[in-house]
Amino acid sequence: MKLNQAGEFGLIEKLKRSIPKGTGVKRGIGDDAAVVTLDSKCEGLLTTDMLIEGVHFNKSDAPERIGNKVISASLSDIAAMGGTPKYALVSLGVDPQDSLERIKAIYQGMISRASKYNTYIVGGDTVSSGQLVINVALYGEVPAGRSIGRNGARSGDSIYVSGPLGNSFKSGHHLVFEPRLKESAYLVKNYRPTSMIDISDGLVADLGHIITVSKSGARIYQAEIPLRKGARLSNALYDGEDFELLFTIPKSDDKRLCQNKKFRFYKIGQIINAKGIVLLEGNRKIKLEHSRGYRHF
Amino acid sequence: MKLNQAGEFGLIEKLKRSIPKGTGVKRGIGDDAAVVTLDSKCEGLLTTDMLIEGVHFNKSDAPERIGNKVISASLSDIAAMGGTPKYALVSLGVDPQDSLERIKAIYQGMISRASKYNTYIVGGDTVSSGQLVINVALYGEVPAGRSIGRNGARSGDSIYVSGPLGNSFKSGHHLVFEPRLKESAYLVKNYRPTSMIDISDGLVADLGHIITVSKSGARIYQAEIPLRKGARLSNALYDGEDFELLFTIPKSDDKRLCQNKKFRFYKIGQIINAKGIVLLEGNRKIKLEHSRGYRHF
Repeated sequence: MKLNQAGEFGLIEKLKRSIPKGTGVKRGIGDDAAVVTLDSKCEGLLTTDMLIEGVHFNKSDAPERIGNKVISASLSDIAAMGGTPKYALVSLGVDPQDSLERIKAIYQGMISRASKYNTYIVGGDTVSSGQLVINVALYGEVPAGRSIGRNGARSGDSIYVSGPLGNSFKSGHHLVFEPRLKESAYLVKNYRPTSMIDISDGLVADLGHIITVSKSGARIYQAEIPLRKGARLSNALYDGEDFELLFTIPKSDDKRLCQNKKFRFYKIGQIINAKGIVLLEGNRKIKLEHSRGYRHF
Repeated sequence: MKLNQAGEFGLIEKLKRSIPKGTGVKRGIGDDAAVVTLDSKCEGLLTTDMLIEGVHFNKSDAPERIGNKVISASLSDIAAMGGTPKYALVSLGVDPQDSLERIKAIYQGMISRASKYNTYIVGGDTVSSGQLVINVALYGEVPAGRSIGRNGARSGDSIYVSGPLGNSFKSGHHLVFEPRLKESAYLVKNYRPTSMIDISDGLVADLGHIITVSKSGARIYQAEIPLRKGARLSNALYDGEDFELLFTIPKSDDKRLCQNKKFRFYKIGQIINAKGIVLLEGNRKIKLEHSRGYRHF
């Protein structure tokens, strides 16, 4: 079977089944970052992201912005776990015909974005490649037992996003976005998010990840979904690369969260005791296919 | 300036200068793995390796062996630091036309090699790419203050390698080698290696890394350099991808190390109070250019 028949999700699912979960591993494959035991107070977060020219960014994009994006995408994974980023490893596959100036500018973009979030690039690898490939592996930390996975959403919980969705790729948002680390830290400190993910595959696909592992369903309201400029509802539902937080909290925290003066969070629906995702558009109920979404193939 | 003019070493050197070393970082860019502070007893090791089809392995290579190699290359970095590997993150860039069976077999190779050394694959990323790209990021641990860098070699120290060198790529050794984790653990437990590196760029280039950061020179003996089957001296000096340990120990430990019954180590020379690397071939002294070596460009 060819991979474009299996699809990325199918592939990952198939591979996951064959990987043994190790000792010391609190959360393995299938979350935004792995969670591993370090000592009694602290757990380690490990995440990796590969970005490829022509897929995740274009050759014509400003190199500093490419650098920003590759670091921010990994920082966003740490944010989604409720953790603090610490150290990054950068592997570069570069075309020998590429210019040193461009690679340096990409590096500058990476360094400046990492520094902004107190993250240090501590190592790397540089190899020859037919197309520009950048892999960022990130190490972060979280107080023991406090990481937020995708599996804690419970019926009745409210569903939130941290910002407008859709049209990220076309608008260039995907190159300049800020990872939601401050928002995540605020949530973790003041509330009890029951599940969290960053929207990279698209709202519907990522909400699909949450309800699948949380063994529940979701109801979302068309009128409540915040749209990025230029985005239609379908973009917000399926585009991906928004890098906003999607999270659930107990309904009892709704009022306090909505009244907070620090960050704007958007309540878009509820977790329900059912299967799948239902979109309410006025009086219409539309069942959404959550295995659809941003496809890397 | 194009990258193939700057060369990988030039590139990395240029980039390194612009990267600030962070707090908590004991060893940053420029060693086999970064060393970061975890707690009073333990330090973390972080390393990343990108392997690309057509550069580090061929499309015709057995997929299980490709999997073996990508994990072993990173395990070898942890061995070179005197540490213990724990968790791996695997990013795959795959051609959508590639077969699922092949990717699964590569994964099987990775899992079986990782398990053998008590290392768990805890996360990953899968993206579309024009050529197969595999990135392995590895997290390991070492008792605080006990990591072995490249910078501790001192004049008078003896230089050793852990096995025969040269002809690794052609002979297929680079696909099936065992990372020298047992040898490393034995050395760390029973001796005091002053510097260590794994030979990936070639004996001369990697010895060059040690003497450069150790601010010393080296004398090696042609007659003492162990050759892999089919290898000539020039292969052993420059081929690369041997993944043997190259290390230095105080001369006073020579006798005990050579008489050990557990592992065969080969003494090939001494660290000297000078610059550069000199090869002694009978009565001839040949100055070796140590910025030469296995080039990824």
